[in-house]
Amino acid sequence: MAHYLGIDIGGTNIVCGAVDEAGRLIGMRKLATEADRGSADVVSRIAAAAEQLRRETLGEGRWTAVGIGVPGFVDHERGVVELAVNLGWRGFPLAEELAGRIGAPVYINNDVRMYVYGEAMAGAGKDVSHVYGITLGTGMAGALVQEGELFYGGGGIAGEIGHIPVPGISFRCNCGLTGCLETVASANGLVRQARQAMEQGRQTVLADWFPGEEAGRLTAADVTRAWDAGDALAHEIMDRTGRALALGLTAAITLYSPQMLVIGGGAARAGERLLAPMREELQRRLLPAYWNQLGIRTAALLEEAGVVGSAIYAKRSAERS
Amino acid sequence: MAHYLGIDIGGTNIVCGAVDEAGRLIGMRKLATEADRGSADVVSRIAAAAEQLRRETLGEGRWTAVGIGVPGFVDHERGVVELAVNLGWRGFPLAEELAGRIGAPVYINNDVRMYVYGEAMAGAGKDVSHVYGITLGTGMAGALVQEGELFYGGGGIAGEIGHIPVPGISFRCNCGLTGCLETVASANGLVRQARQAMEQGRQTVLADWFPGEEAGRLTAADVTRAWDAGDALAHEIMDRTGRALALGLTAAITLYSPQMLVIGGGAARAGERLLAPMREELQRRLLPAYWNQLGIRTAALLEEAGVVGSAIYAKRSAERS
Repeated sequence: MAHYLGIDIGGTNIVCGAVDEAGRLIGMRKLATEADRGSADVVSRIAAAAEQLRRETLGEGRWTAVGIGVPGFVDHERGVVELAVNLGWRGFPLAEELAGRIGAPVYINNDVRMYVYGEAMAGAGKDVSHVYGITLGTGMAGALVQEGELFYGGGGIAGEIGHIPVPGISFRCNCGLTGCLETVASANGLVRQARQAMEQGRQTVLADWFPGEEAGRLTAADVTRAWDAGDALAHEIMDRTGRALALGLTAAITLYSPQMLVIGGGAARAGERLLAPMREELQRRLLPAYWNQLGIRTAALLEEAGVVGSAIYAKRSAERS
Repeated sequence: MAHYLGIDIGGTNIVCGAVDEAGRLIGMRKLATEADRGSADVVSRIAAAAEQLRRETLGEGRWTAVGIGVPGFVDHERGVVELAVNLGWRGFPLAEELAGRIGAPVYINNDVRMYVYGEAMAGAGKDVSHVYGITLGTGMAGALVQEGELFYGGGGIAGEIGHIPVPGISFRCNCGLTGCLETVASANGLVRQARQAMEQGRQTVLADWFPGEEAGRLTAADVTRAWDAGDALAHEIMDRTGRALALGLTAAITLYSPQMLVIGGGAARAGERLLAPMREELQRRLLPAYWNQLGIRTAALLEEAGVVGSAIYAKRSAERS
C-alpha cells in the first residue's frame, strides 16, 4: 500500500504528516523551524523527523512520495524555492536536497496552494470539482483548484487576491500600494482597523482591555472577543471587513466561477461574525448564475490542510510523472 | 487539405469565413441576421451562405468542421444556445440543426469567447501561451485562453468582468447592481458619462454638436472626436474610463496572470486616448511580477477575430473528438 508524506513549513513550526492512499492522516510530527540555523540544518532535521514518522506509522514500509508546502515563491516544476523571506531562502533546490535524504521523489509548492489543495481534495471542497479557497492570516492569499489541478496562470503566479483594489479601502499596503484588499481582509487587517479607531479616541471595550502602549498586543481574536461582548466598534469592523471581503471575492468568483468557496486562516475563526456580512454582500453583488452554484464553507481540515494537501499533491504528481 | 468554416452571429449581421489549415481567412460572406424570421429561417440562410462560400473558395472541397460564435449563453458541450436575448433563442440546438444542413461537425460557443480565441490563436496574442482578452462594446466582456484552451470555470460561466465592482463607479447597471465596471468601461459607458455631464449643464463641444434632444444620438466615436478637438470633458471621460478599466483589469490580471492583454470591441477604437491612462494606472496598481510579464495590445484581427476564432475553435474541437 502506498503512503505519502506531507510537510507544511511555517515560519515557526514544521509539521510532517503521514497520509494513506485514501487521503487520511495516520500520524504527525511537529518540529521547530529554526530557520536561522540554515537551510542544510532544516533539511537534516526534516529528514530525521520523516524517518521517525516513517518508523512509527509505516514500520518497514517506505514513502511513495513527499509533498512540501513552502511560505514563499516556489518554482514547482523545478522544485526550487525562489524566495521565502521568512526562512531566508533564495534559489534553494529544496526538492532535490530532500529527495536525496529521504529516498523518495519530493514535490514542492506554495503553502497556501497546498492548504487550499488539501481542502479541495479532502476537506470542505471534496464533493465538488471547482474550488476556490482563501486564507485570512497575516495577509490574504488564495488558490483555485479545478478537477484536481491547481490553477497557475502565465508565469505560475496567478492569484494574489490580497492585492486587488476594492471600493472603500484607503489603508496603505506593505506592497507599496493603497487600498489593497488584504489591508482590511486579514487577521492583521482586523487589528489595523481596531488600532486606528483606538488612536482616533473611539470608545470601545478594546481601549479598556489594551490601554495606551498595550494596544500593540491586540490580536484578531481580541476583536472577536469584543464582538461577543457587544462592542459597537468590533461589530462595525467585522461588518466592514466582511463586506470588503465580499467585494474582492465578487471579482474572484466572477472570474473563476467556483462551485465552493472555502475560507481558512486565522481570521476565519471569527466565523459568522465575519461571514454573515460577507455572505449578505456576496449575494447582493454576484450575478445570480454565480451565486446560485456557489457553496460557502469554512476550512474543514484547519491546521492539517497544508499537510494533507501536500501529501495528496505528492500522490498526484508522482502518478503523473 | 482541411478547411474550416467560422461563423460570427451578431444581432444585425452574420459573417461567414473560410479559414485554411494555417488559420488564414481565404474568403468571406456576410448576410443580414433578421432573427425575427425565426431560428429555422436563420439556419437555412446560414446553410445557403456556407454552401456559396464553399463553392467560391473550396470548389469541390468540403468543410472539415464548422465553428459558430453566438451572442448569449451557450452550452458548448451540448451545442445548445441556452439564451440569446437579441436573437430570441432559448434552448436552441444550433449545432445539431446546422450540422444536418452542412454535412460537417458544428461546434458553438459564446461570441466573445470566439473573438478572444481568434486573437489569442491568430491575432494579437498568437506569440504567447496565456492571453486575456476583453471587448469594450455595448457592454464589457472577456475571456481567458491558456495554451490553446478557453477557460470556463465551474458551470462554464467564468469571466463576466463587466459586472465586478470597481472603486469610484456609482452608475446603476442593467443587471440591477450599482458600480459595475461595464457602466463606465464600454462604448455605452463613454456615452453614459458624456450625457450625464451634459444633463448637468457641463460646458463641452458635445453640447454644441448635440443640442437638446439630439444628445440621444451621441456615440462613443463622438467622445473620441471631442477628445481630438481638445474638449476638456472628453479628456476627463477618457481618463476616468481608462483608470476604472485598469482597476477592473488589475483584478483580472492578478487572478489570471496572463502574458498578453488584448483590448477589442468598438470602444478600443479610442486607442491611446483611452489606453494611455489605463496603462499608467495598471502599472501603478499591479504587483511588478504581473506587470513585468504583461504585454498590452489592441485587437489585431478586428472584425475578423470572431470568424477566425470560430474556425480555429472548430479545428481544435474536431481534432479532439
